[in-house]
Amino acid sequence: MDCKITLIPGDGIGPEIVREAVKVLDAVGKKYEHHFTYEKILMGGCSIDAYGVPLTDEAIAVAKASDAVLLGAVGGNVGNSKWYDVAPNLRPEAGLLKIRKELELFANIRPAYLYNELKDACPLKQEVIGDGFDMVIMRELTGGLYFGERHTEEVNGVITATDTLTYNEEEIRRIAIKGFEIAMKRRKKLTSVDKANVLDSSRLWRKVVKEVAKDYPEVEVSDMLVDNCAMQLVMNPGQFDVILTENMFGDILSDEASMITGSIGMLSSASLGKTKLGLYEPSHGSAPDIAGKDIANPIATILSAAMMLRYSLDLDKEADAIEAAVAQVLKEGYRTVDIMADGMQQCSTTKMGDLIAERV
Amino acid sequence: MDCKITLIPGDGIGPEIVREAVKVLDAVGKKYEHHFTYEKILMGGCSIDAYGVPLTDEAIAVAKASDAVLLGAVGGNVGNSKWYDVAPNLRPEAGLLKIRKELELFANIRPAYLYNELKDACPLKQEVIGDGFDMVIMRELTGGLYFGERHTEEVNGVITATDTLTYNEEEIRRIAIKGFEIAMKRRKKLTSVDKANVLDSSRLWRKVVKEVAKDYPEVEVSDMLVDNCAMQLVMNPGQFDVILTENMFGDILSDEASMITGSIGMLSSASLGKTKLGLYEPSHGSAPDIAGKDIANPIATILSAAMMLRYSLDLDKEADAIEAAVAQVLKEGYRTVDIMADGMQQCSTTKMGDLIAERV
Ligand SMILES: CC(C)[C@H](C(=O)O)[C@@H](O)C(=O)O
Ligand SMILES: CC(C)[C@H](C(=O)O)[C@@H](O)C(=O)O
Repeated sequence: MDCKITLIPGDGIGPEIVREAVKVLDAVGKKYEHHFTYEKILMGGCSIDAYGVPLTDEAIAVAKASDAVLLGAVGGNVGNSKWYDVAPNLRPEAGLLKIRKELELFANIRPAYLYNELKDACPLKQEVIGDGFDMVIMRELTGGLYFGERHTEEVNGVITATDTLTYNEEEIRRIAIKGFEIAMKRRKKLTSVDKANVLDSSRLWRKVVKEVAKDYPEVEVSDMLVDNCAMQLVMNPGQFDVILTENMFGDILSDEASMITGSIGMLSSASLGKTKLGLYEPSHGSAPDIAGKDIANPIATILSAAMMLRYSLDLDKEADAIEAAVAQVLKEGYRTVDIMADGMQQCSTTKMGDLIAERV
Repeated sequence: MDCKITLIPGDGIGPEIVREAVKVLDAVGKKYEHHFTYEKILMGGCSIDAYGVPLTDEAIAVAKASDAVLLGAVGGNVGNSKWYDVAPNLRPEAGLLKIRKELELFANIRPAYLYNELKDACPLKQEVIGDGFDMVIMRELTGGLYFGERHTEEVNGVITATDTLTYNEEEIRRIAIKGFEIAMKRRKKLTSVDKANVLDSSRLWRKVVKEVAKDYPEVEVSDMLVDNCAMQLVMNPGQFDVILTENMFGDILSDEASMITGSIGMLSSASLGKTKLGLYEPSHGSAPDIAGKDIANPIATILSAAMMLRYSLDLDKEADAIEAAVAQVLKEGYRTVDIMADGMQQCSTTKMGDLIAERV
């Protein structure tokens, strides 16, 4: 198969981890006789440096013409860099918001699971972990407070800033369907998270989720308030299978969920839309402080590449091969410094990529 | 001193825990020669049952005419009770939102600390806990998404729901000042939490906090994004002293913070405004499943009464006495069932109240 992949190395450790993911993809291509071609575009701080904006229209056109997009990470140290002394829509992260909107990537899937091999890094006690946890956050990604109207103005001499949180039935229905579809492929349990005791948008959310649920009678579905969910994630993460929620709540809860795994350097994500074209990126950020040192953990990006094979390119067997290779390397005791533990063998970004590519 | 206290027992375990707090207040009154008089009002489900609304104007008038308000908890099992089959503004929690607004209680203080005696109940590993943690969430309580305009309407045949998140400089300034004031009495460290990479209201928040910070040069202040804060709370809670944030973020983060202490039955809260009149309540909910069984933990409510003495009545010595009595009882090994552990002595709600009252 011929596949056109857009690469967005981005900022910080982005270029290093994307390089390793490409190494692994090439190993897959060789073994399974696929032909991956790559086109690089700039996004984030590097695009600002080159073009004065975080993402050019030309770059978007390249992404749109490809089969899938693989992203490293964008941005730098906020408040500590020239990239941030400008209007919000010119900052590195604005590129990310723009590409999500332009590609209509409304469904953000963030898995959070506990690796057996990395239990020591989990901040939760063994009695809380129990038999472990393995959940997926399905976050709506192109609506809500992120893309509502906003303005700052003087009202009676007082500066006043407003953001709006809007959802319509159709936006909710399409993400709910994605949530139920993924629940059907997993343990068939879905928790829809909202703040329906306060927000109109949450009450509509709840109503539409209930309607969609009728088409999935096998899925056990429940509603949970967002504040309670923030507690339950810490107290009993094993109760969750799929968490379905709106954009801002998903931003907060998915970060919390990834942190309780203790291995944020291991967690991938996918952003999907109406077509097969999706964007894949690690759940972690650009980590500018360790950029260029060849110590970053490339596994989250490599697993994101596996998600790309699965969701955008329908190459399930190949995705399985990458995931198996990652599991194998961990089992053999190789660790990057962020997940290093007693008795394990520490290795660099490059070496970790080599090891996984060899085992594909 | 003569003090007029409004009691809101509320629903579920509310009446039991308020009863124990009154017992302790009376012991304080006796010892220090104060005269506390109490007037009870209905709020929440019990008010709906009696009057058809979660809070009557007469009840508000009683609260306004008193020196302080002590609340148990309101509400029942959402979606599982007649109280919830009605319009949102008629549900039990609407009473809580209404009293916050009517009394202009814009500053919600929620302490989250780890009791040495209860470390076993903390869900975090010892290496994450380190030397323990002791933080306060200062949450804005009468603005933002909670009180913005909202509406649900059909737009081109599609039901669309909108909530608005608005803050003006003055609303931000007054809560920021409260945050810095409390930081000055503590470890002089303040983390202001927002989502300034996305929201206009957060950018205004950041700007005003920076201005207010100039008046408190001794306080070490920093900004943190809300998603990052949700992670940091789990990864390194000891870094926080005072977290200052807006209403919805504060709702989510304070619940997360209270849960990582492992003793949500122990955590008090205060809601303050421009005058001395404040509202004091436990951080936990009405726990309808254990209501009437005399097993609920009354300590959060008793400590809320201590906060009431301190913030609304200027009775610091008396507040200290309650806090010392609670510490003493824990040290002696008494525990309600929610915090029970090996080798400790289990006791009922009533017994716990008696023990603390005796030691005041
Ligand atoms: C960088 C930022 C705008 C972004 C978001 O809030 O969506 C990030 O936190 C994420 O979760 O991908
Ligand atoms: C009951 C609900 C409206 C309330 C809130 O969201 O403020 C509660 O969660 C709280 O934190 O006091």
